[in-house]
Amino acid sequence: MKLKINTYASYKHALPSELKDNVVIVIDVLRATSTIVTAIENGCGRIYPVMDVEEAMSIFSKINKDENVLLGGENGSMKISGFHLSNSPLEYSKENIFGKDIILTTTNGTRAINSAAISAHTVLIGSLLNASAVMQKALSYKKNITFLCAGTGGRYSLDDIIACGCMLSSIGNLDNYDLCDLSYSCINEYMICKDNIEKALTKAYQYKRLKRLGFKKDLEYCCQVDIIDNVPIFKDSVILKN
Amino acid sequence: MKLKINTYASYKHALPSELKDNVVIVIDVLRATSTIVTAIENGCGRIYPVMDVEEAMSIFSKINKDENVLLGGENGSMKISGFHLSNSPLEYSKENIFGKDIILTTTNGTRAINSAAISAHTVLIGSLLNASAVMQKALSYKKNITFLCAGTGGRYSLDDIIACGCMLSSIGNLDNYDLCDLSYSCINEYMICKDNIEKALTKAYQYKRLKRLGFKKDLEYCCQVDIIDNVPIFKDSVILKN
Repeated sequence: MKLKINTYASYKHALPSELKDNVVIVIDVLRATSTIVTAIENGCGRIYPVMDVEEAMSIFSKINKDENVLLGGENGSMKISGFHLSNSPLEYSKENIFGKDIILTTTNGTRAINSAAISAHTVLIGSLLNASAVMQKALSYKKNITFLCAGTGGRYSLDDIIACGCMLSSIGNLDNYDLCDLSYSCINEYMICKDNIEKALTKAYQYKRLKRLGFKKDLEYCCQVDIIDNVPIFKDSVILKN
Repeated sequence: MKLKINTYASYKHALPSELKDNVVIVIDVLRATSTIVTAIENGCGRIYPVMDVEEAMSIFSKINKDENVLLGGENGSMKISGFHLSNSPLEYSKENIFGKDIILTTTNGTRAINSAAISAHTVLIGSLLNASAVMQKALSYKKNITFLCAGTGGRYSLDDIIACGCMLSSIGNLDNYDLCDLSYSCINEYMICKDNIEKALTKAYQYKRLKRLGFKKDLEYCCQVDIIDNVPIFKDSVILKN
């Protein structure tokens, strides 16, 4: 029996029953999972991915006893008033976040992570930055794998799809896996643009939007492949180094 | 202001508000819309696309006064007991259906058509068979266009995606349109396989399934591009020649 590899272009398209006992890789290239992978790489403690500002403030008031906790995230892609950090991965530098816990809320990414956790066996955090590492880690469980893209407001987002294709391409021989139609298409999308991912994304809605808002450096950063080896894992409501 | 062209891989992914005042092209290459396009081409009267067997029987008992009505469709891809026709386009020949009205129920396609009609300006029926014709017709309305794929059980189905790409490619210059990410990917998927669409589909779930069930001739038929010029339209609960 071949292991299955399924892809959903938005977490809103997947039923909890479809993720049951799967290793789920959550992907939100622009920018939530790129930010999380970067923060864990730069030595933050725990990350609490939460649904909204209200939940972020509620958890903050409970856990910020020793002033070691930062609030991060975005609303409409912009920094939230009163928060320490936005959703820009470049802000999650060693000097800003080393040893700190972070409460993070974003429009699509942190919701996708919580949605995955309802029924998955394991939830891993993926991005282009750690593409090969997260794929290898996922395969090591010898379970069915689901790519759960954050998407944008329930829609297919090319940045996430290309990242899935990048991860799948790193497997090499796919003969032992049973891929869904979208997984095959992800590989095609990645193969077309692998020599210049950022150029391919200039057509994409979320790329154009973030560029217009002044986040060109974030876009360049998030389009890099395999510059990070760590694979954050989401367990018991927190994201940790794996 | 550029006209928008959006694509949904399953009708289940689209909110009625997102289709409002759009020209919606419904696509279910394997096999519902290929069957509808063929039936209209071969001179059937009205087609009633209905949600399930119960609704089909209910309408049949009301309209079959002169024994001019046929029941068609599938359940689990197979002919429904007591129905005159299955969902195989090859059964919808002139000799079988000329001048007849048809009540059709399928798992994904007829539901997508009814879903589109909730808020669309116009609902057109598309397939590879009439790809260029349906695209030209849709453009003639000078309105935003949505490709509403039937998909398979809420999932992305490569046959529908390639058909979208085929239609979009027939436009030529896309500079005057604002395409969503998935629309761009549809074009890529089509361009990769346009010289042998059936070969590309041998990896697809629905293709493999129908082949296993013995429908190889249907698959060959449905993969043909631009062999039909008519563009069926769905209006006031029936599909008619446009």
